[in-house]
Amino acid sequence: MGSMKKFLLLGLTVSVLISPLSAKKVKWRLAATWPSTLTPLITPPMKVAEMVKEMSKGKFIIKVQGKEKHKAPLGILDMVKGGQYQMGHSSSYYWKGKDINTVWFTSVPFGMTPSEQYAWFYYGNGMKYMKEVYDKFKVLSFPGGNTGNQMGGWFRKEIKSVADLKGLKMRIPGLAGEVMAKLGVNVVNIPAGELYTSLDRGAIDALEWVGPGMDIKMGFHKVAPYYYTGWHEPGSEMQFLINKRAWKKLPDNFKAMLVTAMKAATFDMYIQNFAMSVDAWEKMKKEYPKIKVETFPKPVIEALKKASDEVYAAYAKKNPKFKEIHDDYFSYMKKARAWSQMMQGSYLNLLKK
Amino acid sequence: MGSMKKFLLLGLTVSVLISPLSAKKVKWRLAATWPSTLTPLITPPMKVAEMVKEMSKGKFIIKVQGKEKHKAPLGILDMVKGGQYQMGHSSSYYWKGKDINTVWFTSVPFGMTPSEQYAWFYYGNGMKYMKEVYDKFKVLSFPGGNTGNQMGGWFRKEIKSVADLKGLKMRIPGLAGEVMAKLGVNVVNIPAGELYTSLDRGAIDALEWVGPGMDIKMGFHKVAPYYYTGWHEPGSEMQFLINKRAWKKLPDNFKAMLVTAMKAATFDMYIQNFAMSVDAWEKMKKEYPKIKVETFPKPVIEALKKASDEVYAAYAKKNPKFKEIHDDYFSYMKKARAWSQMMQGSYLNLLKK
Repeated sequence: MGSMKKFLLLGLTVSVLISPLSAKKVKWRLAATWPSTLTPLITPPMKVAEMVKEMSKGKFIIKVQGKEKHKAPLGILDMVKGGQYQMGHSSSYYWKGKDINTVWFTSVPFGMTPSEQYAWFYYGNGMKYMKEVYDKFKVLSFPGGNTGNQMGGWFRKEIKSVADLKGLKMRIPGLAGEVMAKLGVNVVNIPAGELYTSLDRGAIDALEWVGPGMDIKMGFHKVAPYYYTGWHEPGSEMQFLINKRAWKKLPDNFKAMLVTAMKAATFDMYIQNFAMSVDAWEKMKKEYPKIKVETFPKPVIEALKKASDEVYAAYAKKNPKFKEIHDDYFSYMKKARAWSQMMQGSYLNLLKK
Repeated sequence: MGSMKKFLLLGLTVSVLISPLSAKKVKWRLAATWPSTLTPLITPPMKVAEMVKEMSKGKFIIKVQGKEKHKAPLGILDMVKGGQYQMGHSSSYYWKGKDINTVWFTSVPFGMTPSEQYAWFYYGNGMKYMKEVYDKFKVLSFPGGNTGNQMGGWFRKEIKSVADLKGLKMRIPGLAGEVMAKLGVNVVNIPAGELYTSLDRGAIDALEWVGPGMDIKMGFHKVAPYYYTGWHEPGSEMQFLINKRAWKKLPDNFKAMLVTAMKAATFDMYIQNFAMSVDAWEKMKKEYPKIKVETFPKPVIEALKKASDEVYAAYAKKNPKFKEIHDDYFSYMKKARAWSQMMQGSYLNLLKK
């Protein structure tokens, strides 16, 4: 596999076998949206860096920087596109202001579960569409870990009907916020650091965050005891971004290491997050028995579904690519859901009391 | 990272940098239980071989041999232990005759879903127990892909009550067969090639195989139209086996490549199988509308659960390690299931008619 190089040495020709694996060291930098201590969100880039270092015997180094260092958690796409960082780790739907079609690669209201969505990514048209959408930013995008179905949020009062949503002040970002607004919710945007105080003082009546592991630390349960199950982000996928010029310069074996490591890290984080949620859920039930875990009543779910379909239809009318991906995504989901219900749903219902 | 080697050349000392990555080529052989064309079961070893080849620039080669070559589908553990093959790809529960505790690393009746089981493997005690059980065979074992929840089997007649199981002749292997036997089923073992004929001629009344993708090709639906949902293998994990002496001789960077590739391939096969089942399920419903998909009635499920607990209790009495792993497995499942019901179950039930 090596190549012979000839050197002239004191009039003698010396042939030396140069292995292509002894290529010069590659040093990359990766900017993450999350603080460098925020497990499990930071786990995928950290593990990728560790894996490629070991596999390359220290010849391919990726230095991970959290938001405390670069101070631009929502500037990852720009920084990777511009080449300040060769890689990024973030969530695709943060770029919906640049292109609404980036939402399809995170999670959408009433959308796919993680297994369904991974099947669409890798064995349906998901990766093809992701490439199309990110080509214009001159970056590559890959799946980067999944939080599973996020919880529907903390509410100060019980939601018994659609009427109870009218005039409610709620922090809920993204497409889900647009859906809630259609049902009369007054959707507000509040920095993470002010959320607890806003909820405590009644400046807001409800908020959506992530799931038990991350929510309990914020203390929301103390002032808003109704904790609703999710409908709006059924399998939030994170993303790796790679600058295309940097990618092209990477030796083929390092490309293979990076792709393999990203896939292993994506799977690992989904499982790590699941395991952390398992423990957090058990702890929550034991330590905070007053939290009222509820699912929205059927008429509320149906109203949310109808409003979601209206939000999708409005974007589809303005944006043909949105319509194309929407139709492909939901047609894949329809057949995938039939199998999910059969394989997973039927088993989970088997011994339920 | 390289080391300087000195050579004496016509009285002159010539220093040449030798990269440790240019180490000599490693050639391994892997024996799989499956034919080398049986997608998706053969996918994990095939992809691992491809990935390590690319990552090592052809210096680490794994040659995959299917059962048509080595003729010993159930001899994989022995061949890897003996060193005829450095690696194997199989299912842990095939070795239950050598050690009953190998069953915990495939799937067990009323056991964990794939997400729950992966969480137990990687973030609970699963990998620790797997190492303990396989240490005595002088091999390492790693997760190697998952078929998801398998279907409960094809029946010539509808099962309306526990009484309908009595005297039924059924092909169902493993612990599930022991459970069925407790309910009066006459459990028989028949080679794969004779299954259809046996069912057609009434030599057996029912059989368990895998899931829609693999079952339909066998034609069972033509003679046994009742297709029951599963309870006995809720997330069948496959396994990679590695001979420990071969592992110890492997350079560290090749070890890292192998571990990373196995994890990526495990995830990939779970998704590939899910995607194939999605398509097969849709095709089955369209092309074979006469297949009656059913879930066993609640009293039958409860009787199967009671019989499973009795089978577990009997093994636990004889084998302290069985009791230890059983207790750890089911205690992890209890807390994991609460979260699965919340996160996955609640979402799948959200819009169900």
